[in-house]
Amino acid sequence: MLLQNEDVINYNVDWLRRFRGNSRLVLRPKTTEHISKILKYCNERRLAVVPQGGNTGLVGGSVPLFDEIILSTQLMNEIINFDCNSGVLTCQSGCVLENLSANVSEHGYMMPLDLGSKGSCNIGGNISTNAGGIRLIRFGSLHGSTLGLEAVTADGSVIDCLTSMRKDNVGYHLKHLFIGSEGTLGIVTKVSILCPKAPSSVNLALLGCSNFDDVLKILALTKSNLGEILSAFEFLDAVSMRCSERYLSQKCPIQSAPFYVLIETSGSNDDHDQEKLGGLLEAVSSSGLIVDGTLATDLSKISTLWKLRESITLGLLEDGFCYKYDVSLPLSSFYDIVTLMEDKLKELPYLKVCGYGHVADGNLHFNVTSRIYDERISGTIEKELYKFVASAGGSISAEHGVGQFKRDHMTDVKSPEVLSLMRNIKSIMDPHCILNPYKVIP
Amino acid sequence: MLLQNEDVINYNVDWLRRFRGNSRLVLRPKTTEHISKILKYCNERRLAVVPQGGNTGLVGGSVPLFDEIILSTQLMNEIINFDCNSGVLTCQSGCVLENLSANVSEHGYMMPLDLGSKGSCNIGGNISTNAGGIRLIRFGSLHGSTLGLEAVTADGSVIDCLTSMRKDNVGYHLKHLFIGSEGTLGIVTKVSILCPKAPSSVNLALLGCSNFDDVLKILALTKSNLGEILSAFEFLDAVSMRCSERYLSQKCPIQSAPFYVLIETSGSNDDHDQEKLGGLLEAVSSSGLIVDGTLATDLSKISTLWKLRESITLGLLEDGFCYKYDVSLPLSSFYDIVTLMEDKLKELPYLKVCGYGHVADGNLHFNVTSRIYDERISGTIEKELYKFVASAGGSISAEHGVGQFKRDHMTDVKSPEVLSLMRNIKSIMDPHCILNPYKVIP
Repeated sequence: MLLQNEDVINYNVDWLRRFRGNSRLVLRPKTTEHISKILKYCNERRLAVVPQGGNTGLVGGSVPLFDEIILSTQLMNEIINFDCNSGVLTCQSGCVLENLSANVSEHGYMMPLDLGSKGSCNIGGNISTNAGGIRLIRFGSLHGSTLGLEAVTADGSVIDCLTSMRKDNVGYHLKHLFIGSEGTLGIVTKVSILCPKAPSSVNLALLGCSNFDDVLKILALTKSNLGEILSAFEFLDAVSMRCSERYLSQKCPIQSAPFYVLIETSGSNDDHDQEKLGGLLEAVSSSGLIVDGTLATDLSKISTLWKLRESITLGLLEDGFCYKYDVSLPLSSFYDIVTLMEDKLKELPYLKVCGYGHVADGNLHFNVTSRIYDERISGTIEKELYKFVASAGGSISAEHGVGQFKRDHMTDVKSPEVLSLMRNIKSIMDPHCILNPYKVIP
Repeated sequence: MLLQNEDVINYNVDWLRRFRGNSRLVLRPKTTEHISKILKYCNERRLAVVPQGGNTGLVGGSVPLFDEIILSTQLMNEIINFDCNSGVLTCQSGCVLENLSANVSEHGYMMPLDLGSKGSCNIGGNISTNAGGIRLIRFGSLHGSTLGLEAVTADGSVIDCLTSMRKDNVGYHLKHLFIGSEGTLGIVTKVSILCPKAPSSVNLALLGCSNFDDVLKILALTKSNLGEILSAFEFLDAVSMRCSERYLSQKCPIQSAPFYVLIETSGSNDDHDQEKLGGLLEAVSSSGLIVDGTLATDLSKISTLWKLRESITLGLLEDGFCYKYDVSLPLSSFYDIVTLMEDKLKELPYLKVCGYGHVADGNLHFNVTSRIYDERISGTIEKELYKFVASAGGSISAEHGVGQFKRDHMTDVKSPEVLSLMRNIKSIMDPHCILNPYKVIP
C-alpha cells in the first residue's frame, strides 16, 4: 500500500510538469474503509493529504506543494454495477474514464462526458474538478449527470449519498459540495452516473471560415438547424490547427483558414440526422460563411477529424513550455482576448498564442508557448487575462478548476461574502486543513 | 410592506390546507437589500422567518408552525434580462413560472421546467425545493438549468453567485447548497436560468394499456424509438384518470384501461418527429401493448390531453382530503406499492388509492383520499410506504422536498454522518436557526 522509492517522483509532478512537490509517501488504498482509516489517522495527527486520481489536472490540484502524503485512488477501479434498463453506472472513483466508456458501450450506452485525457483521468477526479469536455453542450455538467456519490471527509466520516435514483429531494443536496471542490472537502470514493443511450447515428463536419464573426453566425445557424441532435460545437484557430497537424504529422483535410469549427450530431435516425446536417451545410455554404468543409459519417473518418481537435494540447507542448488558461467569456468578446494578448506579449520571447475550445459553452482555452518557462510571460498573461475576464463578466476557470494555480486570484473574482462562506464550509468539513492544503481557498 | 389583518391568514395556510401557522406579520420586500436588512434585524433579535414564494408546496415548507414572520417574495417579480443569443434568463426570485414561460417564449425559448402549479409558483420556490415536473426527463434538474443565483443568508450576507456563464469552476459550487434546501440556508433573491430553444414540433400520444408491465415495456420501446426527441413520459392509473375526468367534466378520449401513458415529443422537424413517433406507435400496437390510443399534433388537442394529467390533483381534492406522497422507486417495484397499500388500508375509511407520475424518472405520486382528515389513514400510509421505499433503495421525497411533513422521517433514510454534515452546514449559515425553523433538519 505504500511506495517509498523513485516511483514516488511521478506522483509529485503534475501533467504539465509545472508544479512539483516533495512527498515521500504515496498511499494506494483499495476501499472506502481504507480511506476512512487513513484520513482519521491523518486528521488526528494533523498530517496533510493530497488526493490524486489520474493526475491529469491542469492547475496543480493533484500534486503536493511540500511533503503532503499522496493518496492515490488508482487501485480503486472496480465497476460495482451497471443497470441496463436505467443506464446508471455505479463504480469506485479510481476507474479510468475510457474504461468506463468501453464498459457502458457494451450495453448500448455512453458516458455523459468525453475528455482529451480520457485514457488516464479517473472519474473521481472528473467529479472533484467538475470536468467539462466536448459533450457538455448536450448532456450538461456533472452536477446533472452524477446521481450520487460517496465521499470521506477529513475525520474519516463516510458521507453516503450514493443513490441510483434520478430524484432524491431529501435534505441538503450534499453531493454537489464534493463536485468541483477539488478534494478540499472530502475524497470521493464511489459514484453513480446517469449514462445516456449511445446514438445510432453520429456525423461530424469540419468547416473552415475566414473570421470569428462567421464562427458565431455558424453557431447560431447550427442551433436552429440541428436542434436536439447537436452533440458538439468546437472551434480551433489556425495556430491551434497547425500545432495539431505538426503533432499528428498529418494535414488537415480542408483548405487552410483562419478559423475552424467541428460540428457533431448524435441521434437515433441516420436519415433524419443527415437531412438536418445537410440543411445546415447548405445554409452556411450559401451564406458564404465557410471557405471549405468536409463531412464524416463513418467512425474512422470521424475519429481522424476529432484527433485534430484532441491533439492541440500535445502539439503545443512540443514548443517547450505551454502556458494554459481556461476561461469563460461572453461570445461578444470571446476571441478578442487572443488578439489583445498578442499585442501585450509582443516584447517577450513567446512562440505562439492561440485559442480553441467549447465556444457554444462560452469556454475558451487560451494558450501561449515559449521554449522554456519564463515568468515574465505568465506574469503578463495573468495580469491582462484575468482583468479582461472579470470586466467581461466571465469566469477565470471554466472547467479546469482552481488548484494551486489560480488560488491567489480567487479574491479578485469572488466577493468577501462568497469567500467567507467557502472558508466556513471548509472549516466544518476539514477543520485542521489536512485535505489538499494550499489549494482552492485563498 | 407589512400586513396585519385578515389577509395574513392566507399566508398562514398551505395549499393543501393541511398545515396552519399563526403568524401575525407578513413582509413583502421588493429588493435584495430589503431582504438583507430584514434578515440582519431578525438574526440579531432571534426572530424566526419563513420564506414564502407562491405557497404551492406540498410538504408544509412555506407556512409557519407558530408565529414566525412570513417573508413573501411575491413583489420581487422583475425580469432583469433575457439574452436572446444564449437563452439565459435573469430575474428576481418572486417571478411566477408561467409569466417567465410567456416571456421567454416570445423570444423562441422555453423554461426548462413545467409544473401543474405554474400559474402560481415562483421560480425562487422552484429552485429552493428543486422542483421537478414533466420536463425533467429531457432537460434535467434545476441543478443543471440554474446557471447562477443570489441568496441572502441568515445574518444578511448577500451571496452573489449570479453568473450567466454556462461554466464557472472557481471555488465551491455554492449555488447548489441553496437548490433544494427549502429556504433553511438562505433566501434566494435572484436567479439565472438556461432556457432551451422552444421546439418547432410537438406531438403527444395518449395510450391505454392493460397492466403496469406493459407500461414499462412501452417505456423501453419509447426510449429506443424516440431517442433525443422524447420530452415527457407520464403514467396515470385508472383511478387517477377518473378523478381528472370528474374534475374536468370531460371524458378521456380513448377506451377505458387500467393504465394510461402520455408520451410527448419535442423537436425541430415535424416530419422527422412524426416518423419517429409513428414508428413507436406501430411497435407498441403490433406488440399488443396497448388497448387504445390517440395522437395529438395540434396545440389545442395537446393542451386538452395534458389537462387530463394536470387535473388529477384538483380532482382528488374533490373527495375532501387528499394524502399526497411523492417517492422515488426502482421501476421493478414501482407500482407494487399501490396494490400493497390498498390491502393495508382496507379496514380504514379511505375513498381512493391511486398512483401517477413521472415513471421514466422513477418518480411516483402516491395518493389516498378520504372525506375528512383521519390520522389512522396517514399513520398507516407512512408506516408502510416509507419502509417499502427504504427497503427498495428509493427516496421518500422525489421532488416535493421535506418541509415539516417529512422531517421526522429524515433519520430513517439518511445516515448519522449525512445528518451531522447537514446540521453543521446549517450551523454556519444560520447559527440561530431563524430561517424556516422546524423544517427539513430533524
